[in-house]
Amino acid sequence: MCPVAHSRGMKYDIRPATRADVSNIYGMIKELACHEHKAEQVKTSLEDLERHGFCQNPVFHCLVAEVPDERREEAKTAGYALYYYTYSTWSGPSLYLEDLYVKPDYRGMGIGKQLLANVAKVGRDNSCVHLQLTVSEGNASARAFYDANGGQDLTGKEGWHMIRFSREDFKNLASEAM
Amino acid sequence: MCPVAHSRGMKYDIRPATRADVSNIYGMIKELACHEHKAEQVKTSLEDLERHGFCQNPVFHCLVAEVPDERREEAKTAGYALYYYTYSTWSGPSLYLEDLYVKPDYRGMGIGKQLLANVAKVGRDNSCVHLQLTVSEGNASARAFYDANGGQDLTGKEGWHMIRFSREDFKNLASEAM
Repeated sequence: MCPVAHSRGMKYDIRPATRADVSNIYGMIKELACHEHKAEQVKTSLEDLERHGFCQNPVFHCLVAEVPDERREEAKTAGYALYYYTYSTWSGPSLYLEDLYVKPDYRGMGIGKQLLANVAKVGRDNSCVHLQLTVSEGNASARAFYDANGGQDLTGKEGWHMIRFSREDFKNLASEAM
Repeated sequence: MCPVAHSRGMKYDIRPATRADVSNIYGMIKELACHEHKAEQVKTSLEDLERHGFCQNPVFHCLVAEVPDERREEAKTAGYALYYYTYSTWSGPSLYLEDLYVKPDYRGMGIGKQLLANVAKVGRDNSCVHLQLTVSEGNASARAFYDANGGQDLTGKEGWHMIRFSREDFKNLASEAM
């Protein structure tokens, strides 16, 4: 999975994260928490993240978006999507999208959509039943984003909204993955 | 983890499931679905279960309870607890208990409690943040069981109740594991 997309004259890649990305991902986790004014709630360490996600039996998986930095001849991480598998004994595996984040400098390029579509592609390719995630009541832009991409809001009663992409919904979304 | 407990003159073991248990576990998954009058909702096959849970990177894990069958000099499976890891980038790994089932003939021996306590022990030993599960509104006995063992009902509004054992709650529970 090493797709390349072009948008507004910039190209970017979406690819599975490796151990070498841990520091960048951890930095973005902290950025996201700061953005939500909850920086103090990040109790995990960089070492925790490495141990839990980049071991023989990782608890989570992660995709990163990269934009090439032409001055340095290397890529800069622009965003990430972190997910894990859940399991229903009646219907099989599903995916749960824990975090989706794009750095402010790289917004408006379709990177968030492509991260989401590529997670959906992982789900499709692994026969998952659905893709779920949770967004807060107050995060109107995120709710609009998932709604626009086919996610169904399972509850409007709790302050936290459980969003589900049914198998068909995420297959459609996966077909849009670069 | 091969503890032995005695209750009402019968002893039983709680141990991690192996590939050899798949057929018994699948049978119990179907029993549980029948008990809930939802047998037709079991879409997974025995082969699915084997592929998803007993591979190099299993999506779920399972404990089984066994009672020795003295006539045959072998053990009979009496129940199972099936769980998987979830992950919060802010607080780390947690456990989600998907199924907990004890066959009718073996109820009242404390097997359900010991399956739950041993899942809690897995969580404690793997630095999990909490242990969660969902029970239906109508399943009063299950709700009473989790309540009696320290689970907190996070919602009473949706027909499905999300039960959370905080880290302290499940550490207490883990200390009761055989």
